[in-house]
Amino acid sequence: MSLKDLFTPQDTIFFDLFEEQAEIACDASAKLVDLFENYNNVEAKYRALKDVEHKGDATAHKAFDELNRTFITPLEPEEISRLVTSLDDVVDFIDEGARLLLTYDIKNPDHFMLDFAKCLHQAAHEIRTGVKCLRSSIKEPEVLKGACIEINRLENVADELLTSALKNLFKSTDPIEIIKFKDIYEHFETAADKCEEVASVLTAILIRHS
Amino acid sequence: MSLKDLFTPQDTIFFDLFEEQAEIACDASAKLVDLFENYNNVEAKYRALKDVEHKGDATAHKAFDELNRTFITPLEPEEISRLVTSLDDVVDFIDEGARLLLTYDIKNPDHFMLDFAKCLHQAAHEIRTGVKCLRSSIKEPEVLKGACIEINRLENVADELLTSALKNLFKSTDPIEIIKFKDIYEHFETAADKCEEVASVLTAILIRHS
Amino acid sequence: MSLKDLFTPQDTIFFDLFEEQAEIACDASAKLVDLFENYNNVEAKYRALKDVEHKGDATAHKAFDELNRTFITPLEPEEISRLVTSLDDVVDFIDEGARLLLTYDIKNPDHFMLDFAKCLHQAAHEIRTGVKCLRSSIKEPEVLKGACIEINRLENVADELLTSALKNLFKSTDPIEIIKFKDIYEHFETAADKCEEVASVLTAILIRHS
Repeated sequence: MSLKDLFTPQDTIFFDLFEEQAEIACDASAKLVDLFENYNNVEAKYRALKDVEHKGDATAHKAFDELNRTFITPLEPEEISRLVTSLDDVVDFIDEGARLLLTYDIKNPDHFMLDFAKCLHQAAHEIRTGVKCLRSSIKEPEVLKGACIEINRLENVADELLTSALKNLFKSTDPIEIIKFKDIYEHFETAADKCEEVASVLTAILIRHS
Repeated sequence: MSLKDLFTPQDTIFFDLFEEQAEIACDASAKLVDLFENYNNVEAKYRALKDVEHKGDATAHKAFDELNRTFITPLEPEEISRLVTSLDDVVDFIDEGARLLLTYDIKNPDHFMLDFAKCLHQAAHEIRTGVKCLRSSIKEPEVLKGACIEINRLENVADELLTSALKNLFKSTDPIEIIKFKDIYEHFETAADKCEEVASVLTAILIRHS
Repeated sequence: MSLKDLFTPQDTIFFDLFEEQAEIACDASAKLVDLFENYNNVEAKYRALKDVEHKGDATAHKAFDELNRTFITPLEPEEISRLVTSLDDVVDFIDEGARLLLTYDIKNPDHFMLDFAKCLHQAAHEIRTGVKCLRSSIKEPEVLKGACIEINRLENVADELLTSALKNLFKSTDPIEIIKFKDIYEHFETAADKCEEVASVLTAILIRHS
């Protein structure tokens, strides 16, 4: 057994877990798009989304346990920890935003919610692209950089979406409706901020390791 | 004078200060429980809570000053800084949530607020348990790990509390009441998030030093 | 060409960029003060503020690119990254708060908004003072420390401003007005929190490098 064999498992387990988390973010945001495109069976669909979120939690815990037991890691422990946390946050805010649909008993979501969902879905795909670059020791820094730029652009899109959605919302004269919808929009906008945080960790990793 | 004597003071001062901060979090959350269990003399009780918060600020400043003057620290400076900050944040959000009771002139807090207070009080006790493990160079990693798991569980409890509280709150038709109560709930839920952040720093310290 | 010449450019470019960001924070907050002191041509004035924010984004990106290409940096890469991010956040929240004036079609801002603007303007000036200390390898730690203490004081002022503003706001019986004004106040209060985060990074740099 060579030294290389000894280290390989730890070298790959983290990349496996990061990609699993990115896949979970893609899955969660796809479920969010579907929820708004076909707004029925909301409780059942939310439970399916919650299952994805739980899977995400389990993956994040596995990553932290691995970090606990592993002496040699392919990235700095702090980088791994920050990446796992921010990937988890993306899914958490998608889940929390969707949960509010039930909490507030929303009967008619608007197209802004669908727009947010699509924006998050695109960002999740860029996250997956970026995270995959880590495994190959960032042999393609331009791909990683491009994904990060795109995630930042999508965060700006989410920002502008929030402005448009709020402008439209305040045409309503129903303050309780305003409170509910504003809260949901803001959760999705925060999910986009968390995507930007993932991009920021990926950029920091690129800085240190390329 | 041995080298050990030279280093011992700095070695213990930080643990003293962490434990002081954890004690202050226990005290603040105990005062919050009492406030809701016996909702009278709210201004005087809030002043007493604010005094605790000021004591917490002073302790945090003392820790940062110590970090300024100390060359050799028992933990990484960044770990100390992150732990001091997150412990301070827990008390800050308890204080800010309680302050809103006066700002919004809340006459009748509900049982959800008491439930939040009890949840935060439990989390503060787990924080105290976890922080005490640091002094002994984490000779009992299982105790520290157990405290962190429990803090994370309590953050989930706070999350579910928020959902139940909001579901109940929106039965009201008074939007101004809704705005006030929602703001207070969210401050306590954020305090629970900050407890989780303490657990996350403790876990990171466990990773590096055990 | 001496080694010193080789390193000097990188040594100064980051300080140039930090100071540019601090200058931008001063400019943005000055424009916010003027906006509230002379509340007319709000759209044009907001566009001018947004231009400043875009300049801030460009400066932050330049700093991250520089960090990408530079092998030897005068501060830790993480410190540079945290400082650039928090300076950018200050301007972002000033911009987002001001944008809400248009989103919510605010006709009559109140004196609390002006008070927030003045508080942020003072904090931005302290930030500029603090950031300038970095260039000289912190030869004047007392100046840097004094600026940080003042920023923390101003964050407390912003906190108390929020309490006063909310107390006053809830005298209104118009829930939609309450939602709008509360959102704007909170953005400015968060901008003050981000100033405090800048002070916290500056303090951490002081700890490591003085």
